[in-house]
Amino acid sequence: MKYLRPLGEIIAVAPDTARSGSGCALSVTLPVHYQLLHQEPGITIYECTGTPTDCIKLARNVILKGKPDLIVGGINHGDNSATNVHYSGTMGIVIEGCLNGIPSIGFSLCNHEPDADFEPTCEYVRKIVGKILEKGLPPLVCLNVNFPDTKEIKGIKICEQTQGYWTQEWDACTCRENSYRLSGTFTNTQPNNKKNDRWALSQGYVAITPTKVDITAYECIDDLKNMLCDES
Amino acid sequence: MKYLRPLGEIIAVAPDTARSGSGCALSVTLPVHYQLLHQEPGITIYECTGTPTDCIKLARNVILKGKPDLIVGGINHGDNSATNVHYSGTMGIVIEGCLNGIPSIGFSLCNHEPDADFEPTCEYVRKIVGKILEKGLPPLVCLNVNFPDTKEIKGIKICEQTQGYWTQEWDACTCRENSYRLSGTFTNTQPNNKKNDRWALSQGYVAITPTKVDITAYECIDDLKNMLCDES
Repeated sequence: MKYLRPLGEIIAVAPDTARSGSGCALSVTLPVHYQLLHQEPGITIYECTGTPTDCIKLARNVILKGKPDLIVGGINHGDNSATNVHYSGTMGIVIEGCLNGIPSIGFSLCNHEPDADFEPTCEYVRKIVGKILEKGLPPLVCLNVNFPDTKEIKGIKICEQTQGYWTQEWDACTCRENSYRLSGTFTNTQPNNKKNDRWALSQGYVAITPTKVDITAYECIDDLKNMLCDES
Repeated sequence: MKYLRPLGEIIAVAPDTARSGSGCALSVTLPVHYQLLHQEPGITIYECTGTPTDCIKLARNVILKGKPDLIVGGINHGDNSATNVHYSGTMGIVIEGCLNGIPSIGFSLCNHEPDADFEPTCEYVRKIVGKILEKGLPPLVCLNVNFPDTKEIKGIKICEQTQGYWTQEWDACTCRENSYRLSGTFTNTQPNNKKNDRWALSQGYVAITPTKVDITAYECIDDLKNMLCDES
């Protein structure tokens, strides 16, 4: 938050507990509650019992008087590059902003530790946010920004989402039979593709992956018409 | 499940409670438990304490011996067309299957009521599943299939994801001050676009929207390089 403070008025609406792996989940069955936590010139902070996506929906519909200039998710502790974009609560925030026509950026640092050093990201966060405030983003496109865990960031690469899959995803839990804790290893199926976000991160670059919220596979429509429609 | 029974052996791994609006959420902090509920020739049913996406991860890594031929989500009570794809637990299942290279299809009926009539969907579910078992799907593409709530389905349309946004998303809850229940109205920003899934559904067609799991906005990469990279 302090990184963004020079750039404008900040209103934060954040979940009241860790919400890793929330994706775009919503609170459908339980009501969501929010309360003001802190207020000083330029910064207002609310906490909310809902998911990251609930926070944005509540801010837009209930808390804010007008439309914000920008929605920022993060900085998240942990890597949201590659296929992680689908599971990320940080990107859940950003996808929700983007669906509502608001320029939206998610920031994540490839370090899960509580004492992770976010300081090297500051100048990049300010540069990226400043540029997007100035120039905007195309409709239905948001940014997934991931930082390498290094003091010496080499620069910015605009990337493609790395393809791959997770394996060995569960550790048996001694608490109860047939109980498991989420774990796993990511297998990068394109390890030598220098256009990918994982490659950029491995080389010490900030990886910015422009991300769509219209996820139609347009290129498959004609083949599927032939396969499944009697008349096309 | 009975609709699919003639087509092969079925193994169901389902959440033990309603998980509407789960998106691709994962259980990160709590362990997940599963147990066998029912077994008869051709059908095995497990229940799981996790999210829809957890169910697929657990099935793939722990429960199943081999790779399934197909992953099916649903039939969901309620419409997962348009931008709802992002919030849908049914599509969370399907995206997880697709990320792992397994042909995956999500089925949803545009009716939330407990007594919704799924019968008219049967012949279409069998036709679509049969064809995809035979022909497969392209890599990184899955299907979001939505059924209109009618006894007289007119046929199948292959569609694009309808663009739009939700408004009036919260109803104030009398249970506590500053508490809200999720609600809302979808505003279709392309109501006359006959290629869209919402249009197909409104006309009584099954809407099949091919859906990508590589959500890179490739068309924006060059412009963002110019905007944000010192060297491109």
